[in-house]
Amino acid sequence: MAQENEKEKVVLAYSGGLDTSVCLKWLQVEKGLDVIALCGNVGQDEEDLEYIKQKALDMGAIASYALDMREEYAEGYLTRAIAANGLYENEYPLLSALSRPLLSKHLVDLAHEYGAKYVAHGCTGKGNDQVRFETSIKALDPTLEILAPVREWDMHDRDQEMDWAKTHGVPVPTTKSSPYSIDDNLWGRAIECGVLENPWNEPPADIWTLTVDPEEAPDKPEYVEIGFEAGVPCSLNGKEMPLLDIVKELNIIAGANGFGRLDMVENRLVGVKSRECYEVPAAQTLIMAHKALEALTLDRETQHYKLGVEQQWATCVYYGQWFSPLKMALDAFCAQTQQFVTGEVKVKFYKGNCTVMGRKSPYSLYDFGLASYGADDTFNHQAAKGFIDLFSLPIVVWSAKQGAGAKEASAE
Amino acid sequence: MAQENEKEKVVLAYSGGLDTSVCLKWLQVEKGLDVIALCGNVGQDEEDLEYIKQKALDMGAIASYALDMREEYAEGYLTRAIAANGLYENEYPLLSALSRPLLSKHLVDLAHEYGAKYVAHGCTGKGNDQVRFETSIKALDPTLEILAPVREWDMHDRDQEMDWAKTHGVPVPTTKSSPYSIDDNLWGRAIECGVLENPWNEPPADIWTLTVDPEEAPDKPEYVEIGFEAGVPCSLNGKEMPLLDIVKELNIIAGANGFGRLDMVENRLVGVKSRECYEVPAAQTLIMAHKALEALTLDRETQHYKLGVEQQWATCVYYGQWFSPLKMALDAFCAQTQQFVTGEVKVKFYKGNCTVMGRKSPYSLYDFGLASYGADDTFNHQAAKGFIDLFSLPIVVWSAKQGAGAKEASAE
Amino acid sequence: MAQENEKEKVVLAYSGGLDTSVCLKWLQVEKGLDVIALCGNVGQDEEDLEYIKQKALDMGAIASYALDMREEYAEGYLTRAIAANGLYENEYPLLSALSRPLLSKHLVDLAHEYGAKYVAHGCTGKGNDQVRFETSIKALDPTLEILAPVREWDMHDRDQEMDWAKTHGVPVPTTKSSPYSIDDNLWGRAIECGVLENPWNEPPADIWTLTVDPEEAPDKPEYVEIGFEAGVPCSLNGKEMPLLDIVKELNIIAGANGFGRLDMVENRLVGVKSRECYEVPAAQTLIMAHKALEALTLDRETQHYKLGVEQQWATCVYYGQWFSPLKMALDAFCAQTQQFVTGEVKVKFYKGNCTVMGRKSPYSLYDFGLASYGADDTFNHQAAKGFIDLFSLPIVVWSAKQGAGAKEASAE
Amino acid sequence: MAQENEKEKVVLAYSGGLDTSVCLKWLQVEKGLDVIALCGNVGQDEEDLEYIKQKALDMGAIASYALDMREEYAEGYLTRAIAANGLYENEYPLLSALSRPLLSKHLVDLAHEYGAKYVAHGCTGKGNDQVRFETSIKALDPTLEILAPVREWDMHDRDQEMDWAKTHGVPVPTTKSSPYSIDDNLWGRAIECGVLENPWNEPPADIWTLTVDPEEAPDKPEYVEIGFEAGVPCSLNGKEMPLLDIVKELNIIAGANGFGRLDMVENRLVGVKSRECYEVPAAQTLIMAHKALEALTLDRETQHYKLGVEQQWATCVYYGQWFSPLKMALDAFCAQTQQFVTGEVKVKFYKGNCTVMGRKSPYSLYDFGLASYGADDTFNHQAAKGFIDLFSLPIVVWSAKQGAGAKEASAE
Repeated sequence: MAQENEKEKVVLAYSGGLDTSVCLKWLQVEKGLDVIALCGNVGQDEEDLEYIKQKALDMGAIASYALDMREEYAEGYLTRAIAANGLYENEYPLLSALSRPLLSKHLVDLAHEYGAKYVAHGCTGKGNDQVRFETSIKALDPTLEILAPVREWDMHDRDQEMDWAKTHGVPVPTTKSSPYSIDDNLWGRAIECGVLENPWNEPPADIWTLTVDPEEAPDKPEYVEIGFEAGVPCSLNGKEMPLLDIVKELNIIAGANGFGRLDMVENRLVGVKSRECYEVPAAQTLIMAHKALEALTLDRETQHYKLGVEQQWATCVYYGQWFSPLKMALDAFCAQTQQFVTGEVKVKFYKGNCTVMGRKSPYSLYDFGLASYGADDTFNHQAAKGFIDLFSLPIVVWSAKQGAGAKEASAE
Repeated sequence: MAQENEKEKVVLAYSGGLDTSVCLKWLQVEKGLDVIALCGNVGQDEEDLEYIKQKALDMGAIASYALDMREEYAEGYLTRAIAANGLYENEYPLLSALSRPLLSKHLVDLAHEYGAKYVAHGCTGKGNDQVRFETSIKALDPTLEILAPVREWDMHDRDQEMDWAKTHGVPVPTTKSSPYSIDDNLWGRAIECGVLENPWNEPPADIWTLTVDPEEAPDKPEYVEIGFEAGVPCSLNGKEMPLLDIVKELNIIAGANGFGRLDMVENRLVGVKSRECYEVPAAQTLIMAHKALEALTLDRETQHYKLGVEQQWATCVYYGQWFSPLKMALDAFCAQTQQFVTGEVKVKFYKGNCTVMGRKSPYSLYDFGLASYGADDTFNHQAAKGFIDLFSLPIVVWSAKQGAGAKEASAE
Repeated sequence: MAQENEKEKVVLAYSGGLDTSVCLKWLQVEKGLDVIALCGNVGQDEEDLEYIKQKALDMGAIASYALDMREEYAEGYLTRAIAANGLYENEYPLLSALSRPLLSKHLVDLAHEYGAKYVAHGCTGKGNDQVRFETSIKALDPTLEILAPVREWDMHDRDQEMDWAKTHGVPVPTTKSSPYSIDDNLWGRAIECGVLENPWNEPPADIWTLTVDPEEAPDKPEYVEIGFEAGVPCSLNGKEMPLLDIVKELNIIAGANGFGRLDMVENRLVGVKSRECYEVPAAQTLIMAHKALEALTLDRETQHYKLGVEQQWATCVYYGQWFSPLKMALDAFCAQTQQFVTGEVKVKFYKGNCTVMGRKSPYSLYDFGLASYGADDTFNHQAAKGFIDLFSLPIVVWSAKQGAGAKEASAE
Repeated sequence: MAQENEKEKVVLAYSGGLDTSVCLKWLQVEKGLDVIALCGNVGQDEEDLEYIKQKALDMGAIASYALDMREEYAEGYLTRAIAANGLYENEYPLLSALSRPLLSKHLVDLAHEYGAKYVAHGCTGKGNDQVRFETSIKALDPTLEILAPVREWDMHDRDQEMDWAKTHGVPVPTTKSSPYSIDDNLWGRAIECGVLENPWNEPPADIWTLTVDPEEAPDKPEYVEIGFEAGVPCSLNGKEMPLLDIVKELNIIAGANGFGRLDMVENRLVGVKSRECYEVPAAQTLIMAHKALEALTLDRETQHYKLGVEQQWATCVYYGQWFSPLKMALDAFCAQTQQFVTGEVKVKFYKGNCTVMGRKSPYSLYDFGLASYGADDTFNHQAAKGFIDLFSLPIVVWSAKQGAGAKEASAE
């Protein structure tokens, strides 16, 4: 707890960009708070974390942290996303949704360390990330109060922010601002705004940075073998490596072959549809390979039911409920299913395509004798008649008693 | 009903191939039945239906039909498959599963017309199609008896069948038999057997006939605009045409660009895993475009719930339950959702890729003002705080009373 | 549209109670609006609607309506609730949730008739009904603005309201106020507050008015036969009558036998758990009987899948989404399943119990020959072996390849 | 493994009744096998297990076991059934379905101990239990062969069996046979056949033995407090006891008050509808109490999603898939949710009723301040407006763009 005469403290999720830089100063000026800045490295590009850390101190933060969270992100978050084949609305690999709870956890840890009363983030009032930060933080400590300066202040555009920044000694970017809003980390890169706001417009070439245009990708295909152990990627082309390195490597390989672009209209939690472009080369590759291995190693009933569990998992995570009892129970379901998801998947990259070309497992449920139409057939064909008789019995009775099948057919 | 001294009659699903030709004769010889042969044109390749029809008569059928069912297939079956984004295990577009109930309906109609006591098919005892035929036939008329000669006779391979055929005057194919088992129709082409029976093996080049190898596809992309009216494809590049023609056209365009190959391990109804390769250029294109338009025109709750409905629909159809009360109720659900799925989707084909490049609709639920981060923003940012407060309230209470979020996080 | 010099108009959902009476005056005094009062008769007890209607005029309403909505409620709302076996969290028959959209529809109709800009309701900020009113009104006309005086004004308890009422000439109740908050209509009666707010407390005897204490119910059982036609109740003890009359009659019969009390902790939409007591004699009886008839007339797959549809339907309706695309699509699903839900159900009431004692239908899927273990058995026992062989095949392969069943068993 | 000159061995699930006694002899006579008999005590009534055990030896079994499996049944099976609120089709507490896998496990253990090649059961070809035995046995050891004499032999009714028994020295019952087929264990009692095979017939009084007729139950209510620890019942009226004892005690208390009768038409796995009567006093009481405690201690999202998980769990178990990957993953889900399902539930029995009268938990998520409408209200009413604005936003946009709500309403 803050002592007398001391200012109250706030831990700020700080990225080094204009918004959170202004937040850092605004929290001091307008709220009279001591600011602890936290910048988390979850694999975003091109950032000089030491510079960002120092910049926060220069702007008056009483403490500043730049933490490398990449391994924790891979081991604690991406593994679960892969186990759940986590794709919101069957498409979006949840890259921002996965990093927010991790950042929130470190914000809360720092708040506890410093006895801070507040935690702050720089999200606007119409996105998903505000919900993810706030729900995660409250889940971890419901007594912390949350500040969202961007939602609270009355600056309405970038120019106003620039003015405020100049007035208050906040260093402003000298380069021309991008028309796009970007979020990126190990699991991919999200691009919003600008011309993309019309869903009939084709995405302009300059939004893509992790993936080459398929038309400019190499003319020769590239094969990669991905190994899994109990559902977790563990090797690339036969070489064992931690998931973090596999993701980094695959982002490069897949991206160089033009694979991993995603352009969708998605439903935000706050109730609006939004057009989003993503670059997710490693994420799409790993989930595709993982599904292929599951098709070999999960029994039918589990595989079918898990499709619904996966949808719910992805929706929970998208909705900011990483730390929630339902998400934890869905994790328990998925974890139980991964025990034998061990083996190799061979994929082929070629000019924007990624295709599974083979899959094998010591625990494969594919049985050659049962599946084969050849001489080695071990399947009991005689069983089929009895099976069909009982399997179709409810429909036979229905047809006899209600005659609806015939009516339906004649109506077509 | 059969009169005295008359033989009982059987209506046979007849394709003209070796299996059903032997069936046609076998039913006469071994069962003493009069055979009515029915060959349905559901868009399969390269078949001379008049020749097939005559061949049946030459082998002793008392009647032979070659019916063009393509329009009925497109209008009564493919429309519903598109409305339900029908993909079994999220991948297989159900091409064989969709044609069997249509064939069954005509088999039953003919059985009624001829007063036949039996209906026969040429499926083996370990596939899905036997179940689909038998369940559909029983749904339409539970009093018909079903014969499955291939399951009943004691010929164990193609050589034995060839011998039997020669002995009994059944014309045998002169060309070398393919190592693959093929089924094809408007909605695509299925390839099984041979080297594919090892799921680690890459599919050999010679199995593909509808699609070129992406590496040999044109170097220039090709754009296509697909129009939908209430969920049904109705135009191609601005030209209105019936679904049948759209499917035919898209099979050519997409196939020529190397798009539409599918290679998967799937779970058969009879309880085994099987490796299947499919060529489904039009099916994949239309379902992808339809989903993109739904993302624009269905509200979030409907879109999310429909994912589960779609899985169930595809499983029903795969399991042979086209004519079933559940499938009919799922159709009713889907039909209700399609009212406003009207608009245009622009896709780009390029060397194996098909990418949605734009979508628009007069009923689009995408709202520029609400979605935009720009000056035209009409979203009520202040509402966000109240929303988050109540949305996260269950998790806040959970965390306060059970403290589980914190425990979970620290355990990671 | 309002003309110059005219006041803007508001249509108020008016019940005649203290809250909405104060609202009626407050909207005139504080907002300067002309008020049109609407009181809907949805079957609530003991209300003199003409008196209520006149009271509104006496308090300055420019128009006042007391509409009998009971038939519309039964035919348009309760029929669907019965088709969907609508029970939120498997228990609560949605009585308030069903009446709000109906009231909303009439509010919107009146707003259109009078060119009113506003619609107002008297709900507080922590209940479900505010959401149901507002979502329904916006669904019917998103251009109408909604006022919620109770949420807006700064009166914090009944005493303050009473003072305001006296000051502003609003007639105040002369009887002592009940410690309970009540909502009632044809479909039942809801009781909140007071001693019930501790979920360990037993409900006090004085909260129940529709049902006698089971201990004081008659010592002789009472039998009732309920007839259904396509899922809709259509007769009582063999006498055809409209649903409205069946509901009224059953509320009396069941209530007199002590059946229909419900005491639960439920999850409100606004994120809190709440303890609710309900009296729902007709609702519980009809849904129980309807389920029993469905068990006889729906095939297994439909019956199983419909359980999930029912949950979603009830959640939608509880959450205020009666007028929503998802709810409409779920209705379409349910409607399709009701075609053959025709027949009779015999129930026995006795001191708080309602038990199904028999069910029959011309479309019954129960087949005596198939079900019987007696001499009339027509079931093909030999089919069982084949069925089990294929039904259990995935588990056999799983056990052989992954050996997990044995491990699981030994771990128990 | 069986040695040369030795007979092959079979382990028989042996109940001591006529069917399995004939099986025991038949397997020796017709199959030439050595029989090991296993009779499991899972809590069935009135059986002298030592006598049954000896009888098997007298009929020639080479070994005979009467094992007390009650504790294992309670701890390993009923605990999971309670965690999953296991009710097939929302009603049947799965009493037979739960005991079959346990018996199967012991059959397999004995087969391993004796090197038996076969396992045998005495089920007919149209029930569920054959599937449950065979699937469980194969899951535990797919190499064992299963014999089902009753399905195989050509005796068609009890008289033929009696004749065969007399001829072969099998002791036959001297008492007149019941017209009902009974299965019972700790979790309840199932009654089939006879007059029950017409679902319009009221169950005759003589089928019930665990429960008194509500009309003959005591005139005074009886209260019971049930304690739970992490989802498992652990005390009765404040006295800690193992689940086994709680179940035994509650069967007596509830049964004496006429509670626990169930009369339903259910869908068997083999495709037919069947009318079943059950007596399940403890099972219904414990599941009801467990649900009431979950309503207090599970958050809304978990509680809602778990309803679907519970349906799937019950269907799996009913279908004989206790030892299956899906059932195990569903168990993992349920287990994760039970951590805080700790507390007390007070129920009142009275003449056939069992009513929850109170529930409390140290981990209750019911928050008095948030729920109360009284002076202690801590709920943020102002948040409601923002919440509703965003919660209803998709419907507002839908209404504005597609206008369907209004159309729907006017069509009613």
